Amino acid sequence: MIVVMKHTATKENIDDAIARVESLGLKPNVIEGSERTVIAAVGDERIAGIESLESCPGVDEVMPIVAPYKLASSELKPEPSVITAGSLTVGGGHVGVIAGPCSVESEDQIVATAFAVKKSGASALRGGAFKPRTSPYSFQGMKEEGLKLLATARDQTDLAVVTEVVSPDDVELVSKYADVLQIGARNMQNYRLLEAAGKSPCAVLLKRGPSATIDEWLLAAEYILDAGNPNVMLCERGIRTFESHTRFTLPLASAPYVQERTHLPIVMDPSHGTGHASLVPAMSRASIAAGADGLIIEVHPNPDKALSDGYQSLNFDQFAETMAGCQKIAAAMDRTLGAL
Amino acid sequence: MIVVMKHTATKENIDDAIARVESLGLKPNVIEGSERTVIAAVGDERIAGIESLESCPGVDEVMPIVAPYKLASSELKPEPSVITAGSLTVGGGHVGVIAGPCSVESEDQIVATAFAVKKSGASALRGGAFKPRTSPYSFQGMKEEGLKLLATARDQTDLAVVTEVVSPDDVELVSKYADVLQIGARNMQNYRLLEAAGKSPCAVLLKRGPSATIDEWLLAAEYILDAGNPNVMLCERGIRTFESHTRFTLPLASAPYVQERTHLPIVMDPSHGTGHASLVPAMSRASIAAGADGLIIEVHPNPDKALSDGYQSLNFDQFAETMAGCQKIAAAMDRTLGAL
Amino acid sequence: MIVVMKHTATKENIDDAIARVESLGLKPNVIEGSERTVIAAVGDERIAGIESLESCPGVDEVMPIVAPYKLASSELKPEPSVITAGSLTVGGGHVGVIAGPCSVESEDQIVATAFAVKKSGASALRGGAFKPRTSPYSFQGMKEEGLKLLATARDQTDLAVVTEVVSPDDVELVSKYADVLQIGARNMQNYRLLEAAGKSPCAVLLKRGPSATIDEWLLAAEYILDAGNPNVMLCERGIRTFESHTRFTLPLASAPYVQERTHLPIVMDPSHGTGHASLVPAMSRASIAAGADGLIIEVHPNPDKALSDGYQSLNFDQFAETMAGCQKIAAAMDRTLGAL
Amino acid sequence: MIVVMKHTATKENIDDAIARVESLGLKPNVIEGSERTVIAAVGDERIAGIESLESCPGVDEVMPIVAPYKLASSELKPEPSVITAGSLTVGGGHVGVIAGPCSVESEDQIVATAFAVKKSGASALRGGAFKPRTSPYSFQGMKEEGLKLLATARDQTDLAVVTEVVSPDDVELVSKYADVLQIGARNMQNYRLLEAAGKSPCAVLLKRGPSATIDEWLLAAEYILDAGNPNVMLCERGIRTFESHTRFTLPLASAPYVQERTHLPIVMDPSHGTGHASLVPAMSRASIAAGADGLIIEVHPNPDKALSDGYQSLNFDQFAETMAGCQKIAAAMDRTLGAL
Repeated sequence: MIVVMKHTATKENIDDAIARVESLGLKPNVIEGSERTVIAAVGDERIAGIESLESCPGVDEVMPIVAPYKLASSELKPEPSVITAGSLTVGGGHVGVIAGPCSVESEDQIVATAFAVKKSGASALRGGAFKPRTSPYSFQGMKEEGLKLLATARDQTDLAVVTEVVSPDDVELVSKYADVLQIGARNMQNYRLLEAAGKSPCAVLLKRGPSATIDEWLLAAEYILDAGNPNVMLCERGIRTFESHTRFTLPLASAPYVQERTHLPIVMDPSHGTGHASLVPAMSRASIAAGADGLIIEVHPNPDKALSDGYQSLNFDQFAETMAGCQKIAAAMDRTLGAL
Repeated sequence: MIVVMKHTATKENIDDAIARVESLGLKPNVIEGSERTVIAAVGDERIAGIESLESCPGVDEVMPIVAPYKLASSELKPEPSVITAGSLTVGGGHVGVIAGPCSVESEDQIVATAFAVKKSGASALRGGAFKPRTSPYSFQGMKEEGLKLLATARDQTDLAVVTEVVSPDDVELVSKYADVLQIGARNMQNYRLLEAAGKSPCAVLLKRGPSATIDEWLLAAEYILDAGNPNVMLCERGIRTFESHTRFTLPLASAPYVQERTHLPIVMDPSHGTGHASLVPAMSRASIAAGADGLIIEVHPNPDKALSDGYQSLNFDQFAETMAGCQKIAAAMDRTLGAL
Repeated sequence: MIVVMKHTATKENIDDAIARVESLGLKPNVIEGSERTVIAAVGDERIAGIESLESCPGVDEVMPIVAPYKLASSELKPEPSVITAGSLTVGGGHVGVIAGPCSVESEDQIVATAFAVKKSGASALRGGAFKPRTSPYSFQGMKEEGLKLLATARDQTDLAVVTEVVSPDDVELVSKYADVLQIGARNMQNYRLLEAAGKSPCAVLLKRGPSATIDEWLLAAEYILDAGNPNVMLCERGIRTFESHTRFTLPLASAPYVQERTHLPIVMDPSHGTGHASLVPAMSRASIAAGADGLIIEVHPNPDKALSDGYQSLNFDQFAETMAGCQKIAAAMDRTLGAL
Repeated sequence: MIVVMKHTATKENIDDAIARVESLGLKPNVIEGSERTVIAAVGDERIAGIESLESCPGVDEVMPIVAPYKLASSELKPEPSVITAGSLTVGGGHVGVIAGPCSVESEDQIVATAFAVKKSGASALRGGAFKPRTSPYSFQGMKEEGLKLLATARDQTDLAVVTEVVSPDDVELVSKYADVLQIGARNMQNYRLLEAAGKSPCAVLLKRGPSATIDEWLLAAEYILDAGNPNVMLCERGIRTFESHTRFTLPLASAPYVQERTHLPIVMDPSHGTGHASLVPAMSRASIAAGADGLIIEVHPNPDKALSDGYQSLNFDQFAETMAGCQKIAAAMDRTLGAL
């Protein structure tokens, strides 16, 4: 940690800051610069209260040096993790593809979608049963009934099931039906939920919050890892920016950046990341070319009649065409894709 | 709702879109423009699936006309709501001031702070017992023990207690000790929690998520109102922007803007909204001058030793001085402030 | 244009707004909704003063329907434009690759770079002679001397020269040496410069400003087109967001989105778009997979000794490897790349 | 400057980085941390090429310690600067108020506005003659004719004239008519213009670019100061964020933050900073309460007929009322306001 003193800091201020660094169990190295004094504090920075050093008189800024996460860090485990859950494999040169509707709406809808996405090469089925919705007046999901329909679709297609869980109380129930628990963007910092997912036997797909920094996202993963569940996939679903022509901005450079920092695999979500079906094929291909380990794509038999997210859902033909384009890119990258 | 067709839309596309508008129970008005056709759809827009119209062939864009929230809207209830919870009143020409530490750390700390902030004119005490922390390695709060210490401080000072609740399972417990439940920024879209808070007898302080739009924030309030709790205060605590010299950007224009849209009172949080103690006095005064109905300010006996948020906490003297400045501004605005 | 009245608007307010719409030469269509009145105004919206309608009493919002640009619009010219300037072709199934140093530093540097990037398949040479620098204390470029060195490099390699122009007064001079004038991000709304570039015989590469909306960017292109120069290439170089691990955020979905709206080709800049050399190869490949028409990449013989932008520059070997990866993706996309 | 090595950096990498630090004329201090090595480099960081250190093998990050600007810094000149230009004084406990239309449209309009704003207490007149407009189809200003009308208004009211200059070639002409040259947000990094303004006898009002960091803004001021003009006022006019209910987000904390870093006074622009006339009074008052040194407000005789920016312009009565509110806040702050 680097403690930068103000140029107006007195000798007493500097001595006090040094004492505070020592009282936190760190070793201070004092460097007198041309304009300011800087204290480089050596030791474990991940301790309670450390940022309060900034309140010491004469301190201008406190800059961390070490990543705040440990278990998620590639410094701890340099080789990339490969996560497998039923028919889904993500990482290790294989691009897993999760596809399906935003919400489970009926048996016909989910089973037909499962067969269709499998045929086009998807490796897992997504579908929401517990839906966190912005408005209390929107469709809230079929709940346990939806989970049962997902299980039916899995029985018929052998596709692994990825579905969202929104409350720690539901983790046990959802884990009975799902292969992968999805933690949604709105719940990325719902720490009780992260801890509960950390105790589930299922793998976890952890979506990035739309204003979360990468450190905050990896610290959220750290909660799950720290609770004992090593099977965490990160999912980039877009950040909120001034850009309004897309619903969110998909910062594709997250994929290679995150892969430098963590061993956890990263799945891209071009559906939420753009919010427009017409942009999904291009961003799916681009995700693979950028080196992402997986894709999650919204597919619906009739997007214009979907109860949620229709504007960003592909129909079956569009998904088939998207997958064909993705196969070519995966081959160019020497990677395998989906169920193939 | 306005449905804008693409300039390439065919007659068939337009007819299909009209039929979809009708099937949703809305009345279509077709306007043939110089370059495009537009369908103005009259009726209640707040229904499931409506945004999926965007997936109809030939549709370019769907623009809502009506605010998506109802109970929170000033169209429903034009007169501003005044919320009272114990010693705290927010709204109606009175600026309520909530002050105290980020976390309850000990009886000495919380009781001393309660007396100090009361002396300077605060109307309520804040203090976190259940702490949602970005890192699993940070101090996580004293939990129920912390709630008991808050109750002790209330017994001695008569200040209302404002404290955070992070899980629906805890709402009953926290409601036993608190006057106001705080829903934190990370949980603004934790809908189970909102519903549970909507059934509590306590008032609710609903913080804005750092990337939430104002519509999303008011829809979160709508969940609480819809569950039966009319005592909701909004709390603006800053949004995430590219600006990094402050931890968040406090968009003060939220106060007058929100007051045009909703009857719910709005409390500003200059501590989280700036992230630097030195900026808190100026932004506290500015909040009152902008017409905010309340303030929430972090105060700690020794900010440089706080277990959380020390860098943005005022010490007792700084808080007293801040309140003196705020009193002058409140008087210039013909408002009363805090406990006075 | 859609004029949304407030729910409190009086009959008189509505009549006044209708009269104002008519006085602007537009035809009003009045729709009485369940909660509000809406006026759909038909006619050419691209006229002075139109947004001032928002100031009429009782008006809540004014929403444009038609894109504000004309000449740049794919509504006017549906087939994509292909731009050729010397050895550089961008668009029409061909991905043009512009490569070279941020700044021209010496004859050795620029000539060696020209040969190296040509060998790896680049189709044009970039290099800055007039440098707009954030700090007055940074290297400001070699000016005309730098232009001459670029011309020398072109003489020896036949690569087209792309170089920045920062002032209308310099357009004539720079046009003598360059094949393509680059308008930098900081100057995207320097309208005098756009007008001057619009009169140059050279093609223009127009970078997006880091906080420009896509409409603002296309309107900047419109200035150049309107001044008589049809050879405009758009260049996406990243936007400013809260994300700080990359210097800017490269919103790759711009490529397919812009291609739906305009006939102008789009070039991606993964160097500025990420700000880290290690992320450039992945984002170069991803740009092609997303369907971009060109790439512009910073290459320097010794990035760690560059006078500017070294942190985001590739060395010759890194560029060769990046191009090899890009070739595979271009082939998978059925496109040709660079000089090949 | 702090050079953070990767945890995988070799001894050779570290030695190379040390050598590079030395070759830049800085003195390296090597600190071996528990997980990484850090090199604190002492000396003047404001030199060409320094950031290229990031490209040295094994270097993870380069963090500056010293502010990149000198002349603008309060480290160089601790006492705040007071700027006077004709009837306008900004700083030193006095809040200067600049008011007038976005564009000069006619003699009647500008003279009537000058008298009206003077009567309400404004200290200077604003009005654009050279207008940088997003669209080439919008009104572009009256040019020199507009400057003459501003001079006429000054002759009749004695109000100082603040007007925008958009090109270095116009600086001489505009300086003949103006008291203060405004550099607009779009031109904040038009360095030729900054240098030309630095040679004008007029004071300069430098608007912040909507995505400029505070360091970039102060470095733009540094260009003007470095060219010899000490009379620079900063103007915060809002930044671009995801928040779309206001046209820009006015980050009011800029005022106190900037005042800690620079001696230059800061003027707030609530008109552009909100984009809605109804929000201007609240944000004007808030600006003063936050300690701003001045205000710039758009005022027009008939906002609903303005040729530009009508939606954010106050009419004469609204301005009078706004000033009355501001006077009360200024008095509460022990400051004088406007012409009083």
